[in-house]
Amino acid sequence: MTTALRTQYVAAMTTAPESRPADLVITGCTTLTHDDPHGAGGIGFVEDSAIVVREGVIESITTPEAVAGLPAVERVDARGQLAMPGLINCHTHTPMVAFRGIAEDVPIEEWFNDWIWPIEVNLTDRDVELGALLACAEMIRGGVTTFADHYFSMDAIAAATEASGLRANLGWGFFSSEGAAGRERSLDFALRLRDAADGRITTSLAPHAPYTVNDDDLAATAELAREHGLLVHIHAAENGDQTAASVAAHGHTPIEALRRAGLLDVDLLVAHGTGLTDDDFVVLGRGTGHIAFATAPKGYLKFGWDMTPMRALASIGVPVGLATDGAASNNTLDVWESMTLTGLTQKSAERDPGWLTARQALDHATTQSARAVGLGDRIGALAPGRRADLILVDLTGPHTQPIHDHAATLVFSARSADVLTTIVDGRILMRDRKLLTLDVPRIVEEMTTRLPALTDRGHGRRVQDYDPA
Amino acid sequence: MTTALRTQYVAAMTTAPESRPADLVITGCTTLTHDDPHGAGGIGFVEDSAIVVREGVIESITTPEAVAGLPAVERVDARGQLAMPGLINCHTHTPMVAFRGIAEDVPIEEWFNDWIWPIEVNLTDRDVELGALLACAEMIRGGVTTFADHYFSMDAIAAATEASGLRANLGWGFFSSEGAAGRERSLDFALRLRDAADGRITTSLAPHAPYTVNDDDLAATAELAREHGLLVHIHAAENGDQTAASVAAHGHTPIEALRRAGLLDVDLLVAHGTGLTDDDFVVLGRGTGHIAFATAPKGYLKFGWDMTPMRALASIGVPVGLATDGAASNNTLDVWESMTLTGLTQKSAERDPGWLTARQALDHATTQSARAVGLGDRIGALAPGRRADLILVDLTGPHTQPIHDHAATLVFSARSADVLTTIVDGRILMRDRKLLTLDVPRIVEEMTTRLPALTDRGHGRRVQDYDPA
Repeated sequence: MTTALRTQYVAAMTTAPESRPADLVITGCTTLTHDDPHGAGGIGFVEDSAIVVREGVIESITTPEAVAGLPAVERVDARGQLAMPGLINCHTHTPMVAFRGIAEDVPIEEWFNDWIWPIEVNLTDRDVELGALLACAEMIRGGVTTFADHYFSMDAIAAATEASGLRANLGWGFFSSEGAAGRERSLDFALRLRDAADGRITTSLAPHAPYTVNDDDLAATAELAREHGLLVHIHAAENGDQTAASVAAHGHTPIEALRRAGLLDVDLLVAHGTGLTDDDFVVLGRGTGHIAFATAPKGYLKFGWDMTPMRALASIGVPVGLATDGAASNNTLDVWESMTLTGLTQKSAERDPGWLTARQALDHATTQSARAVGLGDRIGALAPGRRADLILVDLTGPHTQPIHDHAATLVFSARSADVLTTIVDGRILMRDRKLLTLDVPRIVEEMTTRLPALTDRGHGRRVQDYDPA
Repeated sequence: MTTALRTQYVAAMTTAPESRPADLVITGCTTLTHDDPHGAGGIGFVEDSAIVVREGVIESITTPEAVAGLPAVERVDARGQLAMPGLINCHTHTPMVAFRGIAEDVPIEEWFNDWIWPIEVNLTDRDVELGALLACAEMIRGGVTTFADHYFSMDAIAAATEASGLRANLGWGFFSSEGAAGRERSLDFALRLRDAADGRITTSLAPHAPYTVNDDDLAATAELAREHGLLVHIHAAENGDQTAASVAAHGHTPIEALRRAGLLDVDLLVAHGTGLTDDDFVVLGRGTGHIAFATAPKGYLKFGWDMTPMRALASIGVPVGLATDGAASNNTLDVWESMTLTGLTQKSAERDPGWLTARQALDHATTQSARAVGLGDRIGALAPGRRADLILVDLTGPHTQPIHDHAATLVFSARSADVLTTIVDGRILMRDRKLLTLDVPRIVEEMTTRLPALTDRGHGRRVQDYDPA
């Protein structure tokens, strides 16, 4: 960090602090900061810093000396640790943790038609809630503080979110095969649950994909999004085969289908986009909404797909957030792993060791992910006025020493298991790796008894057929 | 596991056990077993098993009931844990942990010529030993029980190996630019240190690469290997550019250079091989030595290289072991990460979700890695008579639950931080994540004071120029 920037942060404390005790004071950590918390500019690291939290908000980032006498309800000695914005899982299906490892080594058609969609027929609200609870536990342990979920039985997921203490953007998925009822349910949920859980829950409309939601329903979704000021969260151009199938069947790409429906002129979160074409970048660049993509590279590697073209998307100013997708394809909800894999696979896909750098990977993990889930002004950076969603990362392990460059250490040496403490809205959800809101053995025990019924495929039915045209 | 196989393991205990106490008894774990510990056949998982260790060797794999009354010096209750062979790092340069993260986002030429080889000019024996000690600590924490090291000041690395309790194959690297002295030093070390540290140290001859060791020196190395029964550990065909440069300069590939030198007719461990040609597979298939490759996919992703062609190597019966290379390119010595990345990148490189499977990845991590480092009859499988090199992995974490398939859980959900206990020759080197042989804070403290002198590049010299022809 430059001296000027350090001075700027220290200056935040020269105004007299409030006399009430702070809710939380963290001291001695190195803090990851952004030159501009809205995402322009670079990332810096302030050594031997302190963070003051009051009423769920970061009040200041300063020095340990400046807060030595400050009364506080809770203090965390974070020497040897690094404070950074909590990770954001920009696209997942939390209950699918129940299917982790059940459908391996198969192509996407078989994965959907022979495994996932036959099993999902069996899901009950309780299965969904248990899956979401286990997923929240995994994410808190991995330093995730916000997730964007696109699934069914979303009230159960909202209940799990509330219980866990996490922040989430939730969207009830729908297919046109459900008729108007699917879209209406998605809207009802989005309006009912927005700003629930003390504002930690935001919502979106969640059409499944252009190959399962028809043009009329996509257009109606865009209208509803505009009318109600809602984000739309959708899968599109998931891989090159889908794009080719769309062009063959309709004469245009999935992204062009979104444009025709008006979805590029509302706030839009697109999962995957590994099958984008050169024309798609032109179309995306003309969209007037806040458009973002979510990338989940582990699954793309497993399925043998291309990677999300992050360099081309960066060139047209489209943010790309990090994601895990569901654990049935990704096996974990480890966004740290997604960050590392993003750094690795982007260099590999571009055949360029210079794209993308560790600092760029951190930018995607923080401000770009926050923008992708529609929370760019609330989270994604540690700065005064932002929600206090942050994690403390142990940097004393032998695999992270010595430190020549904090960005490289975080992206290419550290891992999710190094997250010691996870904080959302100033509330500590995990401290020194001990979960404080969820009871994993109890969740796993109940899930285990339900698994035989849940994973039965003998009924011969499925939620939907996979046919990407 | 089949009932027949379970019966076979249980049968090992029907002979009367010795009356002396066992050295170590582990109970309640799921054990990863091989149908054939020499590497043919499949991998199985025996639930609720027990492992008896005596004098550094696995005496039996049986049931907890069978050992309930067995006297033992030490007992480990491993319920909820999985026992598997310790991981093997088939190619690394341990002291380079000191350079972790110092040379990021650059191509290989710049990495060698502007960073690594200028810095390595500064290395002292003490720097090497400290680096090796830190590396050993990292590897023990990550479940590695054996490593193959190719570096300089190898007596210092041998001392670190001895202190750590790990098993290693050590080779003193040399270039033809050193004249005959380099080769002679490599041989002297290999003969002096073989079977040191109670047999935990084996040795190899370590010519650097065909582009830094000339044809005469390669041929002399092959002669020495044959005469003394030594493994040869070398870098070759590291990437496609190297192969192309070799063909342009000499009219043949690096692998053909090894053949002409006679190195394919001795026991040979080749690092990387991402630049193999179709002709190379024919040449390799005709070699009469035990030839193996070591793959370190993380660095290949970072440099934008191809992957080691493991499917083609499998088709000619050449084992491929897992590796991390040095931490200056790989950022960690995390072989578990290499295993996961091998599974992911092989599917991606082949554009085939069916190659390679999680079970195949485990096979590479166990028996194939053991064969690669010349220890195929001693380690790499948990079976009576094998050295007791094993790890206990926690499978109760939310990211590894529920378990539908142990192989998928291990390769795609678990991670090195889940290793609770690391055992070599029956000696516990880490228990419940606490290191028992090495003091990381002390090592890091001394290394940190030495870093400014070590990383100075102001002298303008380098070990060698990178010129892959």
